[in-house]
Amino acid sequence: MPEIVLTTFDWVPEIPRGYVRDLRVRWALEEAGLPYCVESVSFRERDAAHFSSQPFGQVPWLTEGDITIFESGAMVLHVAEKSDILMPSEPHARSEVIKWLFAALNSVEAASLPWSIFKFSDDTTQTPGRQHLDNFLNTRLQHMEQVLAERAWLANDSFSVADILMADVLRLVDRFDGLKDYSACRNYIARATARPAFAKAYADQMEHFAAAD
Amino acid sequence: MPEIVLTTFDWVPEIPRGYVRDLRVRWALEEAGLPYCVESVSFRERDAAHFSSQPFGQVPWLTEGDITIFESGAMVLHVAEKSDILMPSEPHARSEVIKWLFAALNSVEAASLPWSIFKFSDDTTQTPGRQHLDNFLNTRLQHMEQVLAERAWLANDSFSVADILMADVLRLVDRFDGLKDYSACRNYIARATARPAFAKAYADQMEHFAAAD
Repeated sequence: MPEIVLTTFDWVPEIPRGYVRDLRVRWALEEAGLPYCVESVSFRERDAAHFSSQPFGQVPWLTEGDITIFESGAMVLHVAEKSDILMPSEPHARSEVIKWLFAALNSVEAASLPWSIFKFSDDTTQTPGRQHLDNFLNTRLQHMEQVLAERAWLANDSFSVADILMADVLRLVDRFDGLKDYSACRNYIARATARPAFAKAYADQMEHFAAAD
Repeated sequence: MPEIVLTTFDWVPEIPRGYVRDLRVRWALEEAGLPYCVESVSFRERDAAHFSSQPFGQVPWLTEGDITIFESGAMVLHVAEKSDILMPSEPHARSEVIKWLFAALNSVEAASLPWSIFKFSDDTTQTPGRQHLDNFLNTRLQHMEQVLAERAWLANDSFSVADILMADVLRLVDRFDGLKDYSACRNYIARATARPAFAKAYADQMEHFAAAD
């Protein structure tokens, strides 16, 4: 079996530490119990080789033999295909996981990421578009609150790769205090991040960036 | 083989017509040559049955036997698994398609969707967060422009399900005149939407909503 290599930045500023997307992939790899190593690419100078692996100049990417994958969603799906813990192979159960995996990215993060950009910019000016964006996130969170009030995990009554993405997406909302009114979402994050695989992935990311200071 | 049923709204206002996400799934089904039928759910009154199929109260969703899938990304991936035209089964080629499928949603649409919300709101107030958001989209488009200047299709030198999503995502940017400086992106949309399967999917969606007027 070829070695899995996960590539992330050599260093990032303090603020994104603990939230860089290699965390999602580390978490999935730890849950799956798959061996992997982590390599670094320069944060400050992104060369042609970087763009050939990640066309947006971002991190992370994953290589395994002749396969190179960017996009955290694609990477965790690739890892999940190797692990019954992350995604069962039975078609119905598998489809439940995959739809929630996409929901984390395209229904929730599509709303939370732009919202966090305004928070990050410390921009409090209310304009019609901003109001629309805030409503967009709050509507999505209201629906997630209903879903998570009734179940511990998103799919098949058990933890899956979909929970890695959804919990990680919601963590960033919580960081900017956006989950005050959503206790089921907060409890869900607490449940997910209490897993040893998350703790290991988080500690490893923090250590990786701290080592370059 | 159980029938594939695609559910969308019975009616939507003029503005989103031609851009409702059932289009992506119709397009994939047409490319794959799979039989399907379209059912309607009320746009104005979204009941508990609706939320049990689509927890955010959106459309579309797809059913096939005991499987119900929401999220356009998950639906087109499900369809693509049945079609060598949309996604080859060879692992390397398959992984190329899947990473670009996620890139369309999570790298490009994650930037274009919030941008289009401001456009849709006719909101032109420049604030720090808004500037950040505009830069976010433009950076992504600059990278897509480089990619598309060098290749006709995203993965494996042939049309795939990733192109359905990327072209559909870029279509909405183009609608709000966001691709003026990105001719390779515009040419790519023209190439993708010239396909008979797109034309059929588009005409069918327009007819579906017009029939309810």
